[in-house]
Amino acid sequence: MPDSLPPDSVGIVTPQTLHFDSPLTLACGQTLDSYDLVIETYGTLNADASNAVLICHALSGHHHAAGYHSMDDRKPGWWDSCIGPGKPIDTRRFFVVSLNNLGGCNGSTGPNATNPKTGKTYGPDFPVITVQDWVHSQAILADRLGIECWAAVVGGSLGGMQALQWSLSYPNRLRHALIIASTPRLTAQNIAFNEVARKAITSDPEFHDGRYHDFDTLPRQGLMLARMVGHITYLSDASMGEKFGRELRDQAYKFGYDAEFQVESYLRYQGERFSESFDANTYLLMTRALDYFDPAYEFDNNLAAALTQASCEFLVLSFSTDWRFSPARSEELVNAMIAARRKVSYAEIDAPWGHDAFLIPTPRYTDIFGAYMGRVAREVGA
Amino acid sequence: MPDSLPPDSVGIVTPQTLHFDSPLTLACGQTLDSYDLVIETYGTLNADASNAVLICHALSGHHHAAGYHSMDDRKPGWWDSCIGPGKPIDTRRFFVVSLNNLGGCNGSTGPNATNPKTGKTYGPDFPVITVQDWVHSQAILADRLGIECWAAVVGGSLGGMQALQWSLSYPNRLRHALIIASTPRLTAQNIAFNEVARKAITSDPEFHDGRYHDFDTLPRQGLMLARMVGHITYLSDASMGEKFGRELRDQAYKFGYDAEFQVESYLRYQGERFSESFDANTYLLMTRALDYFDPAYEFDNNLAAALTQASCEFLVLSFSTDWRFSPARSEELVNAMIAARRKVSYAEIDAPWGHDAFLIPTPRYTDIFGAYMGRVAREVGA
Repeated sequence: MPDSLPPDSVGIVTPQTLHFDSPLTLACGQTLDSYDLVIETYGTLNADASNAVLICHALSGHHHAAGYHSMDDRKPGWWDSCIGPGKPIDTRRFFVVSLNNLGGCNGSTGPNATNPKTGKTYGPDFPVITVQDWVHSQAILADRLGIECWAAVVGGSLGGMQALQWSLSYPNRLRHALIIASTPRLTAQNIAFNEVARKAITSDPEFHDGRYHDFDTLPRQGLMLARMVGHITYLSDASMGEKFGRELRDQAYKFGYDAEFQVESYLRYQGERFSESFDANTYLLMTRALDYFDPAYEFDNNLAAALTQASCEFLVLSFSTDWRFSPARSEELVNAMIAARRKVSYAEIDAPWGHDAFLIPTPRYTDIFGAYMGRVAREVGA
Repeated sequence: MPDSLPPDSVGIVTPQTLHFDSPLTLACGQTLDSYDLVIETYGTLNADASNAVLICHALSGHHHAAGYHSMDDRKPGWWDSCIGPGKPIDTRRFFVVSLNNLGGCNGSTGPNATNPKTGKTYGPDFPVITVQDWVHSQAILADRLGIECWAAVVGGSLGGMQALQWSLSYPNRLRHALIIASTPRLTAQNIAFNEVARKAITSDPEFHDGRYHDFDTLPRQGLMLARMVGHITYLSDASMGEKFGRELRDQAYKFGYDAEFQVESYLRYQGERFSESFDANTYLLMTRALDYFDPAYEFDNNLAAALTQASCEFLVLSFSTDWRFSPARSEELVNAMIAARRKVSYAEIDAPWGHDAFLIPTPRYTDIFGAYMGRVAREVGA
């Protein structure tokens, strides 16, 4: 709990739930007749609605990106380090919109919602959602908010895929796409880790083919394992070494299989906490959205050809020790942008924290991010 | 099945089971009153017993390192590419001994054996075995075979740790230690992956605290997950990309969570096969042996100080794309050897296959390995 709100915080924020009644047809062919999206906004929309910035979240993210929900909150939103007065996304200049994506488990319509057709919880019947679907729903959200064109669409990791997809699906509805710690498509290794996570969940006997709520249970062990393996891929070998090394919880080896090393108990704790707070069907859905994203696919695997659809400017950022979505993946994207003659700025940030570095404010990262967003603000007179 | 045996094969081989009746006291403080070791040997021991080479196996390895058990065998032993007439470990010159380690599940005494004290299967009561324990048991095996001094002790991965430990525990009983794709100790990330594997096994309801045999079941799902996550770490991102890429099993996305990408079904297949053939308690034991290995620990984390115990010569080999035990870990070991003024040769082999590269014969690898072993042979007049 903050004793007082930091001066560079957006302060106390309140989520809003927006209801949508027009059917949304999804990439899988199914239709959602109606749905809710939970959003938060920070800052003020200017008169010509030109200063709006959309924040797209990653796998386990949600709408609460900045500020506090109450003075009792222990932690602020997940990207508070980058959103607020004087921060890279400066809420004195921008109107920031952050949402929980469709299929999520933080209030937007997802597997835990009631299926209006049956009156029962969707559970495993909730359709698989793609990055294109999310961007489609975000465009409908923009319509509702009176935003014809985003000053910028910004996201890290899976969020960066959404920013990229925006540039392809709605080229005239954004001026800038900021694609951070992301990739134009998963590698086989990325998919393999997702498959381990999914298999951990679906092979948990408490999963009950996704109908765990009907059995008044949760696939906690499976979700815990999924998070543990995911968590390892978010950190670098070096940062885990720095944080935990080979440190033991007690003085000596116990010659057993309980958690003895600090890193073991840390992972278990992270996994257990996550398994109580996140929905297993949503986890499956988010990982599949990651797997499927591949804008080059329909262009004969020619990413540059796919990018000729885009007309916005791009900032691409990667982090030196990110082995989940390595700098090489960002460079692949940047090279395709250059081949397609798009305007792109690129930086690889030297940071030791692996993939998670996009959530951690470091001077070079926030300087570049802030300078770019400053230019965006000036362009739109914000 | 080979139609005829390849000329560079050791041919048809037959494992032998050796029984030991003298108690073996383990690092954990427990004692095994008696135990069996299953071994295979290739080649002929010379008159002064100077041409013997010990092969130490990795996590899921065993005594069957080379040749075939019958003409019906589909595959030869796990290191057949490196052991045989004219191969790096040339069986025309060396007498090669390969064993299944204590705690294993291929015939040597391990969790599936009967505890003579209770008349029941050991299961989870089988003690945790360390690399030091293995080396101790291998020294007793050498006594039985009349081998006072190995020409070389050779191992990859966890096997390399045993070769290193030999140089420290019995400095006068080996002339050379070949440490391939190994590390002087696990990093936090290595331990974290092992913890995920163990947690997958122990949280499988069919594990029954390790007494699955009493329940006439196996923790197949847990062992499958453990193998899947392990398998990812044995391969490189690049080699998985080369082998599978984003290839689908069918033409298009199915918008579900069954295996759609080739890499998913490959991993599931590998995991399922492994879960039928490997013992879960042994898997726990092997991963813990990996975690615990840390010869510098008793020397105030000074690896060079630990290495002053050694008097043999060393060959250390690493592989460029091995991210499980990266070349940096081998270099750490080599630098400590140099600081301790030991004789060491080192090469980083450029190979795309990640950690598994130590099992795959490539010209530079087998050339260096073979040249070194040729020198060893000449030294002992073999």
